[in-house]
Amino acid sequence: MKTISGFSKLSKNEKIEWLAQQLSGQEQEDFLNIKDFWHSDEQTQKVMDDFSENTISNFYFPFGIAPNFSINDKVYHVPMVIEESSVVAAASKSAKFWLSRGGFKAKVVDSTKAGQVHFIYQGDKEKLFSFFNINKINLKNAAAPLAVNMEKRGGGIKDISLRDKTDSLENYYQLDVTFDTCDAMGANFINSILESFAQTFQDMAAQHTFFNEQEQQIQIIMSILTNYTPECRVVASVECDVEQLGEFSGGMDAFEFAQKFERAVQIAKVDVNRAVTHNKGILNGIDAVVLATGNDFRAVEACVHAYAARDGQYRSLSSCTVKDNKFKFELDIPLALGTVGGLTSLHPMAKTSLSVLGHPDAKELMMITACVGLAQNFGAVRSLVTTGIQKGHMKMHLLNILNQLEANEEQISLAKDRFEDHAVSFAAVREFLAQTAPAR
Amino acid sequence: MKTISGFSKLSKNEKIEWLAQQLSGQEQEDFLNIKDFWHSDEQTQKVMDDFSENTISNFYFPFGIAPNFSINDKVYHVPMVIEESSVVAAASKSAKFWLSRGGFKAKVVDSTKAGQVHFIYQGDKEKLFSFFNINKINLKNAAAPLAVNMEKRGGGIKDISLRDKTDSLENYYQLDVTFDTCDAMGANFINSILESFAQTFQDMAAQHTFFNEQEQQIQIIMSILTNYTPECRVVASVECDVEQLGEFSGGMDAFEFAQKFERAVQIAKVDVNRAVTHNKGILNGIDAVVLATGNDFRAVEACVHAYAARDGQYRSLSSCTVKDNKFKFELDIPLALGTVGGLTSLHPMAKTSLSVLGHPDAKELMMITACVGLAQNFGAVRSLVTTGIQKGHMKMHLLNILNQLEANEEQISLAKDRFEDHAVSFAAVREFLAQTAPAR
Repeated sequence: MKTISGFSKLSKNEKIEWLAQQLSGQEQEDFLNIKDFWHSDEQTQKVMDDFSENTISNFYFPFGIAPNFSINDKVYHVPMVIEESSVVAAASKSAKFWLSRGGFKAKVVDSTKAGQVHFIYQGDKEKLFSFFNINKINLKNAAAPLAVNMEKRGGGIKDISLRDKTDSLENYYQLDVTFDTCDAMGANFINSILESFAQTFQDMAAQHTFFNEQEQQIQIIMSILTNYTPECRVVASVECDVEQLGEFSGGMDAFEFAQKFERAVQIAKVDVNRAVTHNKGILNGIDAVVLATGNDFRAVEACVHAYAARDGQYRSLSSCTVKDNKFKFELDIPLALGTVGGLTSLHPMAKTSLSVLGHPDAKELMMITACVGLAQNFGAVRSLVTTGIQKGHMKMHLLNILNQLEANEEQISLAKDRFEDHAVSFAAVREFLAQTAPAR
Repeated sequence: MKTISGFSKLSKNEKIEWLAQQLSGQEQEDFLNIKDFWHSDEQTQKVMDDFSENTISNFYFPFGIAPNFSINDKVYHVPMVIEESSVVAAASKSAKFWLSRGGFKAKVVDSTKAGQVHFIYQGDKEKLFSFFNINKINLKNAAAPLAVNMEKRGGGIKDISLRDKTDSLENYYQLDVTFDTCDAMGANFINSILESFAQTFQDMAAQHTFFNEQEQQIQIIMSILTNYTPECRVVASVECDVEQLGEFSGGMDAFEFAQKFERAVQIAKVDVNRAVTHNKGILNGIDAVVLATGNDFRAVEACVHAYAARDGQYRSLSSCTVKDNKFKFELDIPLALGTVGGLTSLHPMAKTSLSVLGHPDAKELMMITACVGLAQNFGAVRSLVTTGIQKGHMKMHLLNILNQLEANEEQISLAKDRFEDHAVSFAAVREFLAQTAPAR
């Protein structure tokens, strides 16, 4: 491909035209179809376009509903955005399963967020700490105008600490700041405050008479929120008597199921290969709600997985106990979510999601999301220890392939019968269709 | 909300109607607008609907282009799907920066994937190992029909090992299987083979005459691929003489920049708070390409973050060295991606992405994706150590708010001037607009 200068300055149509010119034949024609993915309302499309840069179209993700989640005795029909088959089905099935067994319980442990000013200071440690203690209040005061609105909503800066990190890197220290950002994810609020702290801290140090010349020259490396929020955490659980679990495929009884399920979760606690995929399954559910509500899934993912490795080994986030005839399954997960600010109110579909959920505040959304993660995990482990995962997966995959090959109703029905006991692959399905009446 | 029975059996329109009935007034009306997000072509919409379950609409993500990536001396204009502002802009800026400094280099270390059969065996260890060694070939033979197509494409089962995991859990063992899945992510292939192995292994054990009765009863807990693929890895890098880096905002020279940049990356190596956000930034770039090409971002995220914690502490995935006047920035990351199978060829926009990228194979896509991650990280750290992150972020955020408030051209221009040196918040922008000519 050729390089291009000034691409960002081209209009949307000019961008598309230029890119099309880099392709040829059928590909060029197909490429121009991306305009069919624009929203028919120009203003709505403009909102989408301006979320990001150099935008030329939209990528569609299926927006589905997992109904009947009972969480702390309140019923939710949960919007989920996910392109992977079986996820919404599994969440729905688990929701229904637990609906008649007491439902999900959830509670928010805490919702503290944090950020750091990372800096280099070459000099006497004690002098730095005493400088910090004297000036802590001045830091807060200087940033006060930035915090006014958040304080009105009941949040603000919680605490500022000075951390000596010189054992890990020469002359490296942190201002470690904690925040309450109420119902916002609060990234902009936190970063603005931190950048203000950094500036004030550096300025004050430059004038601090007890510092020598070198000590006065604090080097700010960066000021930035952390997505690692182990304090911003929710615990979700389900629980019932073992015999209430009922019977499973292949005549597996409740006790065998409970024992196998518990072992499967124990394995995910001790084996990294399993733990990663186990937690990935939890995140299938979590991310689908995060996406649907306009939250940032990269932030959630990074935090959750680092939390899973907090004791030095990467482990399952969920745990299962079978004790005194009680089956209990629990998820302990950090989730920094917002219901105001960011895309939550800017993206029309995110607004729809929050409306369907009954306008939860951030803590309620944390609980809903954690429960969907737990439901997802329950569904996946249940499949794994009973029928295996492939049966359900392949059924969905078959449907995708049939759509892709534009199979008609009759062919779909025939193919479903055929592939009940034959391995599904694109080639096998195509071959099978070729042997039945043509699709068009 | 009320619970509902048989939701999945309702038609799409019935689902929407039922959900609308649970809302009232303006919310009910707004909810029905989700139909405006349907694709105008019915068949295309049906393809989207069937990717998942209980689907009622599409969630749009901005589809943008980061142009001018030079990777191993080949130019790419990279499709990125991301709802967060500044990401595509940062990637594009980094691509351009490195275009004139030798471009990006990348190489795939290996592309081995893996999966495990997790089982419980109560008995003599040596007998189990000798049983496995005798029957290894039989396992492969029994699964052969499932591997035929993959073998035709040059892939297949690489190796099977028996792992003693009894030190972490009583009587727990694994069949650990490695695979080459060519250009496919290969999830279905791997899971089918593993389920077949499990069945065969259990059947053979039941008939193995050297086993006692208890030993014959191997309990399969589950058979499943792992998303943890540290062997499926790519290394991307950029490099130039320090003085070639040029000059930065605020008159920062190349040497100061290089030193601060190196320190910032070192901090992300030693501090978990920074490491999580640092890697989150890398994933901003990675995921945008993963999404655009129809790959599974949850799989990538889980693997990448567990890999970041592999030595017992969660650390930065990128490293920076400034040595002998050379600035080098490198990313070492596991990425199991596919360019055939799954959604890659089913989702029309994923097909478009692969076409714009010139139909890369899986390894080439791994390299492109890693380079976008590195570019993203370069852009983020560059902002952090020079102007700070808020300046660019707030500019984008302002535009989103202005769109949301339906500001006209004149108001947008006035607001841009005003908020050059005033803190951006929804309330502040709304207030400012109220003081200028009304939008409509």
